[in-house]
Amino acid sequence: MTETTEQNPIILASASIVRSNLLRAAGVEISVQASDIDEVAVRQVLDISDAPMPPADVGLVLAEAKARSVAALNPGTIVIGADQILALDNEIFSKPDSIAVAHRQLKQLRGRTHELHAGICCVRDDQTLFRYTDSASLTVRDFSDDFLQNYLNQEGEDVCTSVGAYKLEGRGVQLFSKIEGDYFTILGLPLVPLLEFLRSQKVIAQ
Amino acid sequence: MTETTEQNPIILASASIVRSNLLRAAGVEISVQASDIDEVAVRQVLDISDAPMPPADVGLVLAEAKARSVAALNPGTIVIGADQILALDNEIFSKPDSIAVAHRQLKQLRGRTHELHAGICCVRDDQTLFRYTDSASLTVRDFSDDFLQNYLNQEGEDVCTSVGAYKLEGRGVQLFSKIEGDYFTILGLPLVPLLEFLRSQKVIAQ
Repeated sequence: MTETTEQNPIILASASIVRSNLLRAAGVEISVQASDIDEVAVRQVLDISDAPMPPADVGLVLAEAKARSVAALNPGTIVIGADQILALDNEIFSKPDSIAVAHRQLKQLRGRTHELHAGICCVRDDQTLFRYTDSASLTVRDFSDDFLQNYLNQEGEDVCTSVGAYKLEGRGVQLFSKIEGDYFTILGLPLVPLLEFLRSQKVIAQ
Repeated sequence: MTETTEQNPIILASASIVRSNLLRAAGVEISVQASDIDEVAVRQVLDISDAPMPPADVGLVLAEAKARSVAALNPGTIVIGADQILALDNEIFSKPDSIAVAHRQLKQLRGRTHELHAGICCVRDDQTLFRYTDSASLTVRDFSDDFLQNYLNQEGEDVCTSVGAYKLEGRGVQLFSKIEGDYFTILGLPLVPLLEFLRSQKVIAQ
């Protein structure tokens, strides 16, 4: 008989490299198990109801759904779910699935202010221990069509990996005239409140 | 006779790897020429005067001094100077020069809110074209002595590379209970207004 291997105390239920890198850079040991929930289907259900849910709440519902689906497979383990919603007025944007869609989205965002809503949710077994949501406000400048074309040429397929087709930590910052809000919220994982919660659970050092 | 080599249009007068990485990641071509001004001496002059200068202004004066000293050597070229000041109330902190000093500084910051003031200044020849300052407010949590000791053990001499002995993009985020302000300001280079200025000078694409 072998001993049970020690279970990792924290699971991140997100396939986002940015999120796992943020936690690991902060010194938090995690394992990653992406959830298999169908986000698009969940969003559609939330969208077509008579009283559409505010975009920030959609992010939180998705974060919780991801955390719950992974927690069910990992008894006794804290699971972090996270989601981020880009909303222009009340229209929710999805990640562009092609450069042509990225082009259309960036033209739609140009000269206007949109919101990024980040939701995080921590679940153990069937218990939700923590819910948090925060929003940032970003104004896209009135860039030229030439600038947009060059931007898309330089970024290539990479633009399809980010909602809004930009990465602020890269060339995407050139798209903006104003950025208001927490940087970790903009990256999709409000780290300071999440770490505070993990400390309260004594799964990271005080 | 050979042709004159093309002069690089933008010089960053800062030895900070973080700053040059930010600009390059944003797609801005720069060359780096650190200024040889004696920051400590300048700060002392500003500090011992009858009416001590507000910390945010100290950062701007230093940014301008760096830009001017490099601009004088590079006629016709836009030079970016930048500086960042950490102030707890009106006390200005310098980068710790040893782990022992970092230990003392972090104990002093613990449980309190300090400010990071970032100043940037762009100079061409002897003309100041752009001045900008922005501040962020950071609250250090009441971490345990054990936590502090572990943090210093893990970070090692690296803590001496940052004012305040922390890097928010790494383990340093664990020191905080609240962070308010622009992330680029916290990193020491308010990128959005700087890019706007560079666009206005037509040295980067519109």
